[in-house]
Amino acid sequence: MADRPDVVETGGTAGGLDQIAQLDLDRLDRRGYPEAVFCEGKTADQVGRIATALADQRQVSLFTRVREEHVQAIHAVLPDAAYDATARIVAWPPTPPEPTGGPVLVLAAGTSDLPVAQEALLTARYLGRHAELVVDVGVAGLHRILAQVPRLRAASAIVVAAGMDGALPSVVAGLVAAPVVAVPTSVGYGAAFEGLAALLTMLNACAPGVAVVNIDNGYGAGHLAAQIAAP
Amino acid sequence: MADRPDVVETGGTAGGLDQIAQLDLDRLDRRGYPEAVFCEGKTADQVGRIATALADQRQVSLFTRVREEHVQAIHAVLPDAAYDATARIVAWPPTPPEPTGGPVLVLAAGTSDLPVAQEALLTARYLGRHAELVVDVGVAGLHRILAQVPRLRAASAIVVAAGMDGALPSVVAGLVAAPVVAVPTSVGYGAAFEGLAALLTMLNACAPGVAVVNIDNGYGAGHLAAQIAAP
Amino acid sequence: MADRPDVVETGGTAGGLDQIAQLDLDRLDRRGYPEAVFCEGKTADQVGRIATALADQRQVSLFTRVREEHVQAIHAVLPDAAYDATARIVAWPPTPPEPTGGPVLVLAAGTSDLPVAQEALLTARYLGRHAELVVDVGVAGLHRILAQVPRLRAASAIVVAAGMDGALPSVVAGLVAAPVVAVPTSVGYGAAFEGLAALLTMLNACAPGVAVVNIDNGYGAGHLAAQIAAP
Amino acid sequence: MADRPDVVETGGTAGGLDQIAQLDLDRLDRRGYPEAVFCEGKTADQVGRIATALADQRQVSLFTRVREEHVQAIHAVLPDAAYDATARIVAWPPTPPEPTGGPVLVLAAGTSDLPVAQEALLTARYLGRHAELVVDVGVAGLHRILAQVPRLRAASAIVVAAGMDGALPSVVAGLVAAPVVAVPTSVGYGAAFEGLAALLTMLNACAPGVAVVNIDNGYGAGHLAAQIAAP
Amino acid sequence: MADRPDVVETGGTAGGLDQIAQLDLDRLDRRGYPEAVFCEGKTADQVGRIATALADQRQVSLFTRVREEHVQAIHAVLPDAAYDATARIVAWPPTPPEPTGGPVLVLAAGTSDLPVAQEALLTARYLGRHAELVVDVGVAGLHRILAQVPRLRAASAIVVAAGMDGALPSVVAGLVAAPVVAVPTSVGYGAAFEGLAALLTMLNACAPGVAVVNIDNGYGAGHLAAQIAAP
Amino acid sequence: MADRPDVVETGGTAGGLDQIAQLDLDRLDRRGYPEAVFCEGKTADQVGRIATALADQRQVSLFTRVREEHVQAIHAVLPDAAYDATARIVAWPPTPPEPTGGPVLVLAAGTSDLPVAQEALLTARYLGRHAELVVDVGVAGLHRILAQVPRLRAASAIVVAAGMDGALPSVVAGLVAAPVVAVPTSVGYGAAFEGLAALLTMLNACAPGVAVVNIDNGYGAGHLAAQIAAP
Amino acid sequence: MADRPDVVETGGTAGGLDQIAQLDLDRLDRRGYPEAVFCEGKTADQVGRIATALADQRQVSLFTRVREEHVQAIHAVLPDAAYDATARIVAWPPTPPEPTGGPVLVLAAGTSDLPVAQEALLTARYLGRHAELVVDVGVAGLHRILAQVPRLRAASAIVVAAGMDGALPSVVAGLVAAPVVAVPTSVGYGAAFEGLAALLTMLNACAPGVAVVNIDNGYGAGHLAAQIAAP
Amino acid sequence: MADRPDVVETGGTAGGLDQIAQLDLDRLDRRGYPEAVFCEGKTADQVGRIATALADQRQVSLFTRVREEHVQAIHAVLPDAAYDATARIVAWPPTPPEPTGGPVLVLAAGTSDLPVAQEALLTARYLGRHAELVVDVGVAGLHRILAQVPRLRAASAIVVAAGMDGALPSVVAGLVAAPVVAVPTSVGYGAAFEGLAALLTMLNACAPGVAVVNIDNGYGAGHLAAQIAAP
Repeated sequence: MADRPDVVETGGTAGGLDQIAQLDLDRLDRRGYPEAVFCEGKTADQVGRIATALADQRQVSLFTRVREEHVQAIHAVLPDAAYDATARIVAWPPTPPEPTGGPVLVLAAGTSDLPVAQEALLTARYLGRHAELVVDVGVAGLHRILAQVPRLRAASAIVVAAGMDGALPSVVAGLVAAPVVAVPTSVGYGAAFEGLAALLTMLNACAPGVAVVNIDNGYGAGHLAAQIAAP
Repeated sequence: MADRPDVVETGGTAGGLDQIAQLDLDRLDRRGYPEAVFCEGKTADQVGRIATALADQRQVSLFTRVREEHVQAIHAVLPDAAYDATARIVAWPPTPPEPTGGPVLVLAAGTSDLPVAQEALLTARYLGRHAELVVDVGVAGLHRILAQVPRLRAASAIVVAAGMDGALPSVVAGLVAAPVVAVPTSVGYGAAFEGLAALLTMLNACAPGVAVVNIDNGYGAGHLAAQIAAP
Repeated sequence: MADRPDVVETGGTAGGLDQIAQLDLDRLDRRGYPEAVFCEGKTADQVGRIATALADQRQVSLFTRVREEHVQAIHAVLPDAAYDATARIVAWPPTPPEPTGGPVLVLAAGTSDLPVAQEALLTARYLGRHAELVVDVGVAGLHRILAQVPRLRAASAIVVAAGMDGALPSVVAGLVAAPVVAVPTSVGYGAAFEGLAALLTMLNACAPGVAVVNIDNGYGAGHLAAQIAAP
Repeated sequence: MADRPDVVETGGTAGGLDQIAQLDLDRLDRRGYPEAVFCEGKTADQVGRIATALADQRQVSLFTRVREEHVQAIHAVLPDAAYDATARIVAWPPTPPEPTGGPVLVLAAGTSDLPVAQEALLTARYLGRHAELVVDVGVAGLHRILAQVPRLRAASAIVVAAGMDGALPSVVAGLVAAPVVAVPTSVGYGAAFEGLAALLTMLNACAPGVAVVNIDNGYGAGHLAAQIAAP
Repeated sequence: MADRPDVVETGGTAGGLDQIAQLDLDRLDRRGYPEAVFCEGKTADQVGRIATALADQRQVSLFTRVREEHVQAIHAVLPDAAYDATARIVAWPPTPPEPTGGPVLVLAAGTSDLPVAQEALLTARYLGRHAELVVDVGVAGLHRILAQVPRLRAASAIVVAAGMDGALPSVVAGLVAAPVVAVPTSVGYGAAFEGLAALLTMLNACAPGVAVVNIDNGYGAGHLAAQIAAP
Repeated sequence: MADRPDVVETGGTAGGLDQIAQLDLDRLDRRGYPEAVFCEGKTADQVGRIATALADQRQVSLFTRVREEHVQAIHAVLPDAAYDATARIVAWPPTPPEPTGGPVLVLAAGTSDLPVAQEALLTARYLGRHAELVVDVGVAGLHRILAQVPRLRAASAIVVAAGMDGALPSVVAGLVAAPVVAVPTSVGYGAAFEGLAALLTMLNACAPGVAVVNIDNGYGAGHLAAQIAAP
Repeated sequence: MADRPDVVETGGTAGGLDQIAQLDLDRLDRRGYPEAVFCEGKTADQVGRIATALADQRQVSLFTRVREEHVQAIHAVLPDAAYDATARIVAWPPTPPEPTGGPVLVLAAGTSDLPVAQEALLTARYLGRHAELVVDVGVAGLHRILAQVPRLRAASAIVVAAGMDGALPSVVAGLVAAPVVAVPTSVGYGAAFEGLAALLTMLNACAPGVAVVNIDNGYGAGHLAAQIAAP
Repeated sequence: MADRPDVVETGGTAGGLDQIAQLDLDRLDRRGYPEAVFCEGKTADQVGRIATALADQRQVSLFTRVREEHVQAIHAVLPDAAYDATARIVAWPPTPPEPTGGPVLVLAAGTSDLPVAQEALLTARYLGRHAELVVDVGVAGLHRILAQVPRLRAASAIVVAAGMDGALPSVVAGLVAAPVVAVPTSVGYGAAFEGLAALLTMLNACAPGVAVVNIDNGYGAGHLAAQIAAP
């Protein structure tokens, strides 16, 4: 289409980085945590250009909600970046920092909640916490979560990823002193309404101490847990 | 306003019963359970006329969601009718029938759920079941419901009334073989949305075996439990 | 991507079963019904590993909401498992147990509700009930459901799958003594809102005795009916 | 507050009619039906001034959704206007015109739907149709509506007012050739959501031929039925 | 998969018609209009079997919401059936009956509303009415609809298909005596919410005389218009 | 209750202004428009203290959504403040400034929309614009708005307050070059959902040039119109 | 009504405490925080009986969402209990414990958010934290929150109560390292939908580190902040 | 399918333009702005025929929401039309007119909001304004928007495209005198509900002066800004 007039001089794919993004590079100083790049809704070209800019910085960089094309664009610039397909996260540098602060425990109510839980797990690790994952401890078989009580009580912050009825955070919060970060997932039959049901359940937890984040936002859950468990 | 023309010859307060209601008196034969009169949205005059018609029948009659004026109108016709202010139910004849079938257990997750639970309890009794009530066994203090496991397993049908997160039916259903009738209540903070949150939680119960009825519909819950536990 | 660091030691595809699921194998003892595997949101690899674990048990296993890749993964482990494409269910062992308890009748309001009705039918059978299916008896042609009244009254539990206006359960419940399990389907024009309209209709059934389950949740409907009709 | 400056010269209570309303007096010519005055949200003073203006015209005037104070303001100007407290309608001149066109039949599914049905009934009559009312023919006792089939088939238009599940229009439409005007009412338990459930049911009627109007809008239902049954 | 046990004897693709549908063939007698086959959610095989059954009848048959595979299945049985790709309708016999009753006018507010309008147009024709279509007369350019006033006033029933703000039915109803059948379409930007915005607009039409049907339900709109304009 | 310990030293009614509000007094410099005081949710005591603080300033002050008790508290401090009961606004100083910029025209679709329209009218005047009001020009009688076209085209900004179908802004925007500020009102039958229907209509206006503000927010509409018509 | 039969032996007002509530008195041991009594939906009699039971314990007791009648019932049992009318909280013993852990800062975006903020403030104090309140720092005048940055950065946990757009938590979270507990309030015009708008804003905060609790749930916000800032 | 009867003589692909669209060619005279063609929901054939008709006019034509097939159909008729893939806009003639009026500034809160912002930018330019774009100035890093204050204050109208929390318009409106056109985008995690969250935030902006348009409607935002900044 080169022979047709191009009326747009801004935002095109050939432009500089400032035409598509302004990295918040001092966020690490200001907030104590580096910026993450939410890749959904961005083109591979945009993500690649952001990766290039971040390569000059030496701070931990997380790319979340990546698709395969994003991964390729990042690896072209940062070939040793770590990629986790379940969590859809790319991290660079590939090795998480030495953990500080208190331990973070991440629970997935069911196997289908694993991608979100894994995203929370990796986020907490890359932000500097010790973090572990326990899978498939939904309230339909209560003995499974009750078997984890000692581990639950040892954590400084607990992330609970749950879809369907989203009832697990209420139960967990009733058992521990630490805050519970509840992340609803979009798992379930029709009336789950893509996570709305679990979201409302969590907001209405009858046990206080439940901090709710957005549906399927494992990154946000891991980030909040890392802040709560900070040294 | 007597000197003004009255253009309405139907539905006026002076008309016969058939201008406001057609009692489904053979419902007892057809379904095995008598009709109940849902008083919300009816005038005291209408309820009184229905009570008059029912007085000629000898079958159990339940008036639900009564206000004080309804009670007075019923008592004017059926002076020995039993009235429970918490459940907002009037029953006539006042004594429930001898119980048959299996036992029904009614749980109220919190004290605020008591009116709905009580309505379910009385409905089950007047429809001929043995029914008992246990209050304040919400999942925030899990030991309270776990202490009831033997009683839960002895029931042929369990009604669970819960507001807020509505998580109790999931937990209970995971512990027993009998069906759980879940009735959401309109109790809770803003995002409970007048019972919508609990309703969605119950529809998404991760444990199968949860039968959901309408918000605050204790009558419906008790009726369904009576059917499930029928001989 | 083997030359890139792998930072995730949990939840990967090469890990053991406990990294993705904790089977609730004593559910059969505790509840009287075996666990089912909800395959939506699970990878074929995960489903295959679960099938492997279940192969060592001798209890009835249902895999619901399967896609073609799930079926292949299961058949690789359990080659004689039965698969029904309409219901999207895989069952193993392939033959249902001898029926006990009362009969279950499953109604599909229209042909488009057949997949959900079929899922309910097979679930009830594999959980040990005698179950039959009647299709296309929606209320737009009332004579069709009225012709089934004797069969309706012979059932211990009736499942009604209906989309669009979801009016059939109200009509059926008004004709019988047994509980009606109503399962809304996501069938209909725009304002059906993917089953929300039928769901609300069923929750508001003017006839008591309607037990509502989640949208398109034929498994849940069949399970609840099997419990109600249990010996 | 007379000693304080009055900065508003428009819309005040002392102004002329054109500061609060512009009557659509040629609507009778243009559309064949006179304008009605929706009184909800209007002050008694405003309604009184509109009544004064209409007194000079000789066309049928309907005031809908009146409160007691509106009735008094109208009667001060039009002392012989007819008032129906159930329908919350005032009509003037008090006597409906001689009926023309086909008959309109108005059904109320339950007694609680009577106010809306009555509003439809009177509207149809004042717009010049022969109209009759049948009450309490909900689908929970199907024999009641089936007993009306000959009357249903004799009508040129049928209005059905129903709350809760709103299932009656589907059933009626499946029995007749004439259009069914369905008006949802705000009657029911919590998940009726003030008529939303019945509204959605009616929009999703599995029988074609259902014309839906706004929740509790008996006036609109009666008006539409009068148009359909026009000579 | 032939070597695996087949546990399902009902609803399979090899079964008889009564295992997937019960045609309402006497609907023509009972209601005066033949049944239509809503093909969404049906397999091509199911549609083909229904077409086979209808071929033995001599009444008008409409197949709505067809996909390409449905068309092929129908044409295999009824090779001369008429197919309109815009309306996604197949009709058989291919020629509409001689028109009776009053004229129906179908309006499409914009070009994007054409498929729904066309479905209404053809439905009205095949149900025996004279019907015409006018396209792109939205209220943003009011002169376009005002130019149609004589034609609007000549119609016995008017169908208006509109997405986005759905404002056209209010304007049209204010200009005519005949009923307006309003069908919202799912056309528009995000806050159109797939037709919900237009649906609500139409239900709230400030001009009485608007009969609302389901979103994108051109068939229902045409059917209702045909009933209203019936002889 | 004086003999009981008072544990709260902040936010009590006896505290200074900074314990309940921080007036944004430099907003006039920064934005060119003074701050307004939204009185809903504030106690009379709080409003009185705010009025006291504003009395020291010489800038225009608007108090919106006042109740009777607010008016008394303001008049105790600012006895000559102007109060308009329809708009529920108190203004001080009582006389609006000399108008500058272009003219603002405010339309109320119906009489019931008058309070919101009046609030917009007065806001625009007190912010320094010439503003006029036209009432009852809804689209059900299109001739009423068409008669205003010259006046519409003379305005620099047009505010349209409309409830029910909210269709008027689409029609007006299609007739003029100036922006239309659309403010939905909570007027209408049940499916108006307290203004949601009109809000969605306006957001989906098929004519571009419609600026939507919050439901019943006449103040916001008048403010935005004043900005658009600024010199 | 003493001469009428009393059919209810459970849940009556004369019964023991276990018929209305089961206090979770070991919650202090299990979770480190005492139970609070949510008074909304409870009768004064019920609250009084709970107060009597708590009087025997020596742990901090909070009664939230009290009405005047609840306060009287509590003061009859615990005459020195502290009552804050703005926060609608009663606390006993009246003096908060000595503060431990980090400081909690509570922000109210506007004056109308004060009740919720005050409830959070007092809850944090009674659970043992040092807590302070800053009022009226909404984002419409950004200088007000920017002036608080040093104080914001000194806090271990920040509670932000905001209605309307609910934008303040996003802004605050972008400025600090500590977690922000966001509590939406039901303040605002119609499209605030009783706090839903602010709730969604907070769940979608573009800055990570925002922990959302239920609408108007100041108690929950204060509790969570106290947990985060625990020693 | 030529051998099958074609029953549709209207709306087919071979018909004239008036069978699919009625161009509003005098809109330029009436409103001062030309018509745009919303291509979503139109076939390539329809768009091509509209392009052909517009080629005879000499006014600016915008085709919005184009897909690749639309672009080809337009280029076949108007080979020099300008196409911007990010904004999904085709413009003809390709060069925007000389700018008049005040400057328009377009802000994209994040990189993912770029397509909508770009659509607004180009629309404003083609309607005759000087327009510039600033990207990635979300409130999570407040310094980025504060750095733009001089530029913000120089604009006659500001467009803000934002997804997620949609908080940027509130902040910007608090800093400037000019109106802010807020366009929510469908960017974000689950509880963004496809732009609903941002939409509600913007409607509830605590700073007056925010004009809201439809979700993702960059065209509408640019059009409104062009009107506000008109000479």
